[in-house]
Amino acid sequence: MAEIIDGKKVAKEIRAELKDRVAVLRDKGVQPGLAVILVGDDPASATYVRLKNSDAQKTDIEAVTYKMPPGTEPDDLEELIDSLNADPSIHGILLQTPIPKHLDEPAFLERIDPNKDVDGLTSRNQGMLMRGQPRFISCTPYGVQQLLVRSGYEIEGKHVVIVGRSNLVGRPLSVLLSSKMADANATVTLCHTGTKDLSRYTLTADILVAAAGSPGMITADHVTQDCVVIDVGTTANAEGKLIGDVDFDAVSQKVRAITPVPGGVGPMTRTMLMWNTVRAAELSV
Amino acid sequence: MAEIIDGKKVAKEIRAELKDRVAVLRDKGVQPGLAVILVGDDPASATYVRLKNSDAQKTDIEAVTYKMPPGTEPDDLEELIDSLNADPSIHGILLQTPIPKHLDEPAFLERIDPNKDVDGLTSRNQGMLMRGQPRFISCTPYGVQQLLVRSGYEIEGKHVVIVGRSNLVGRPLSVLLSSKMADANATVTLCHTGTKDLSRYTLTADILVAAAGSPGMITADHVTQDCVVIDVGTTANAEGKLIGDVDFDAVSQKVRAITPVPGGVGPMTRTMLMWNTVRAAELSV
Repeated sequence: MAEIIDGKKVAKEIRAELKDRVAVLRDKGVQPGLAVILVGDDPASATYVRLKNSDAQKTDIEAVTYKMPPGTEPDDLEELIDSLNADPSIHGILLQTPIPKHLDEPAFLERIDPNKDVDGLTSRNQGMLMRGQPRFISCTPYGVQQLLVRSGYEIEGKHVVIVGRSNLVGRPLSVLLSSKMADANATVTLCHTGTKDLSRYTLTADILVAAAGSPGMITADHVTQDCVVIDVGTTANAEGKLIGDVDFDAVSQKVRAITPVPGGVGPMTRTMLMWNTVRAAELSV
Repeated sequence: MAEIIDGKKVAKEIRAELKDRVAVLRDKGVQPGLAVILVGDDPASATYVRLKNSDAQKTDIEAVTYKMPPGTEPDDLEELIDSLNADPSIHGILLQTPIPKHLDEPAFLERIDPNKDVDGLTSRNQGMLMRGQPRFISCTPYGVQQLLVRSGYEIEGKHVVIVGRSNLVGRPLSVLLSSKMADANATVTLCHTGTKDLSRYTLTADILVAAAGSPGMITADHVTQDCVVIDVGTTANAEGKLIGDVDFDAVSQKVRAITPVPGGVGPMTRTMLMWNTVRAAELSV
């Protein structure tokens, strides 16, 4: 039976460190502030925003949620982002996605001041990551990295195989883990829907990250006994239960270590948003 | 003996297409203009700039070179870039690197209007590439892609192994070729100085791109007979002769196809700068 990598535990450790960093900032007269923008009434988004507020509270970050109606005019959202960009008490701005379809999501994400873009989604911050000098790393990739390292699984020199090339996870994670920096410097293979014979790659992985959003797609046939498996997938089934990309029951019988869903990457993602907010506040001093 | 992939020939084909596109632009009253900024008196840089001017001439692009002395003040370079950013007759701006050490190269590259950044080096353009919606792709990665496709070597679905993660070549190429778009969609493994047992990866490559800047490092032991080898390396030896990263004599006896150095990727890189300039002019209409 594989070792279970406990995301809740590591996230809690990081939150404790963040509280200490916030205390240092407060001593300097800086109260880290996070603005969360929620447009429309998607229930999943509302839940995520609630969890983010709860995480902020646990780390002494002041979080303010801006709720806007489903029919929000582009001008109004622009105005809100511009005013938050200009507000010195706000260090991080998060636009909860997806936003209603009549609003140009990429354009609004891009409108966020790169110095406050704690989700790391502006092209400026993605470009900095690509050059190996990241300022804010997107929260899920950052969470995957920290979860591995803080659980004792070295990344440096390893073969990391990532399945999925999304803008939010697979793509930035592939860049991050292959960069020449501490807790990275891995040889990375990025697999996706265009990959032929997936197991040809996954069977050579020291670390396998499943981030395809395809429930149970990684089976015992895709892994070796030395593999460390990180499951980023979280698809809700008909009963609302979260299902990972990895067939946990079968794969956990075979591999060296594995994350559960939920309780693996999820808590890390939320915590790294707090990390980025604290970092934004530190950079503002 | 491997097929020889002829970069000169493909570059010439592309230049002919570009001339046609320039003719269409001229009919609309638009003359594509490229500004090349050369700071200091590095002889290699001066040669590159001369070659770029010659390529521009061959494709009916109007190239203007701005020569600045080695002791150029930051303010003066800023002023030049700002004025070129504002000049409607200039569609592309290229800052020839390296620039003298007292000038902050990344900051000056970043100062170029992303709409005129035909080298694709601003973080804005790198971020767009990362999101799979490139505007200007850096010239060498773009040249490698076009060289493969136009020489009849399909990229889609193949395993591409890249050796070297430089900002100019390996990193953007890994992103480009793994993107979900035509002439890409490959499974890409990015190797580098932190990779242990390089041949473990290169021996599984359908396409191997050597972009490490380490003369002759890819030997016959690194390749299989089915491999298509692209050599991006160009290191000048003591006699000033350009040496690739691939041991051409030995490797060309074994593999399916290979680029020579010189005459492989080099002419493609220069031609894709013209491509990007024409595209910038087209986007400006």
